[in-house]
Amino acid sequence: MTLEAFLAESKTLVDAALDRWLPVATEEPRRLHETMRYALFAGGKRLRPAIARAAAAALGGTDAEVLPAACALEMLHTYSLIHDDLPAIDDDDLRRGQPTCHVRYGDATAILAGDALQTHAFLVLARETPRRAAVADLVLALAEAAGTGGMVGGEMVDIEAEGGEPSLARVEWIHLKKTAALFRASAVMGGLAAGAGPAQLEALGTFGTSLGLAFQIVDDVLDETGDAATLGKSPGKDRAARKMSYPAVAGIEESRRRARACADEAQAALRALPDSAILAQLADFTVTRLS
Amino acid sequence: MTLEAFLAESKTLVDAALDRWLPVATEEPRRLHETMRYALFAGGKRLRPAIARAAAAALGGTDAEVLPAACALEMLHTYSLIHDDLPAIDDDDLRRGQPTCHVRYGDATAILAGDALQTHAFLVLARETPRRAAVADLVLALAEAAGTGGMVGGEMVDIEAEGGEPSLARVEWIHLKKTAALFRASAVMGGLAAGAGPAQLEALGTFGTSLGLAFQIVDDVLDETGDAATLGKSPGKDRAARKMSYPAVAGIEESRRRARACADEAQAALRALPDSAILAQLADFTVTRLS
Repeated sequence: MTLEAFLAESKTLVDAALDRWLPVATEEPRRLHETMRYALFAGGKRLRPAIARAAAAALGGTDAEVLPAACALEMLHTYSLIHDDLPAIDDDDLRRGQPTCHVRYGDATAILAGDALQTHAFLVLARETPRRAAVADLVLALAEAAGTGGMVGGEMVDIEAEGGEPSLARVEWIHLKKTAALFRASAVMGGLAAGAGPAQLEALGTFGTSLGLAFQIVDDVLDETGDAATLGKSPGKDRAARKMSYPAVAGIEESRRRARACADEAQAALRALPDSAILAQLADFTVTRLS
Repeated sequence: MTLEAFLAESKTLVDAALDRWLPVATEEPRRLHETMRYALFAGGKRLRPAIARAAAAALGGTDAEVLPAACALEMLHTYSLIHDDLPAIDDDDLRRGQPTCHVRYGDATAILAGDALQTHAFLVLARETPRRAAVADLVLALAEAAGTGGMVGGEMVDIEAEGGEPSLARVEWIHLKKTAALFRASAVMGGLAAGAGPAQLEALGTFGTSLGLAFQIVDDVLDETGDAATLGKSPGKDRAARKMSYPAVAGIEESRRRARACADEAQAALRALPDSAILAQLADFTVTRLS
């Protein structure tokens, strides 16, 4: 299967499962359910679910086994976007060309919809995961990636660092926490859902971390070099906000080189896995967005 | 043991466990960890953890078994207070006589600290629960109580209902979701942590729901009749905000009667449990705050 076909299939499967596992918008509290669905079905690439599916598939796992984890990852990611876009944080009015949640539904509803999506990620993981013995580890992997040692911790330091003196160490710390932790969890949770052993989980963790770092560096580069149509958002926004970014510290060329090196590291970690062709292609895809 | 001694013991045990399981404030991101600790150690009564401990004890469960669930409940509750206090929601400057999180640390940090406390509740549940086979059910019970079918759903409808025409059905719906769902989860999770069977969990669920409803009605009454020193907040605030409240619909006397009836229902549910003296006292305590 080509990566393109795999990503399209992932999106179809994940969107259907999300629709099935989210509360319907006609049920009270309707406004909250509508907001959660608005944010979730705004047209994301479903990259984290695709990583989880590919990781499970690399170990012979099935879609039925991995879809709850895949959906939990997407809900977690979406909640973080809703809260990051709030006026008190990044104050973004547009995401993927559409009004952000708080612009459309108000700040209070956006805060609560984000809160509810985080809760629902854990709910779906606990309720829908077929491999019951894996639930505790899945919840732990998601919580570690999402919490103060991961995504939210990275977001906090990112905000604190705005306008400060950038350094390579600082940028990498933020990228590892804010982005790579959830990529790592995506790969690891795919493995857990499929019953992976410790060595396989270790390999998937290394793969996910390196892939996440590559992805974020590429994102930084595209923010400097891309156009609005490609990005779905205004380019140069990170620079304008004086956000920590890889190109701001290392320059565009070195950033490209580093992203490629991370993708290579990700691919090197795959040697321990039986059937990792799609994971390897995901690593390539992450950096070829550059060209 | 008297209820007073039990509550004091709960607070000591829960505070020590929270301190042990929360990231230290000297570790990055320091500001985030400091904010989480500020909110969590602002002096709550630890009522939900006490319910969980008492429920576990009623079935012969130990503190070691129930403390992770007890701490998770308190973290979940605290995150909801931080977010409810935000300017975009209830806009409260004081809680328990201290500046609220966003007043002290800013809105962005308060949002992220609330987010991180919710995540950490699930993390502690998954990482620290000794009875591993109960983790999935514990996570599910907490998520169901916290999500759109529970606490956040109740908060959403509470906001939407502000200033609208109050009705008994609406007020009870809000109270059941916003408050009673987490009380129910407290009792049920105490049972799960101690290995309760289905009939015992059912009894604990009924107990918790009735106790939660009694508690919230009493809270409404105290908001009308109490003084600032007893409440730790300004009385009459709910009325001023035209919040749905039991006394606004049914009057003070009928509210008192209804709270007592709920406490009686809670106590009646305890007959199925071996050693429920403390739980029964908790129900009495909830309504005697009235006098």
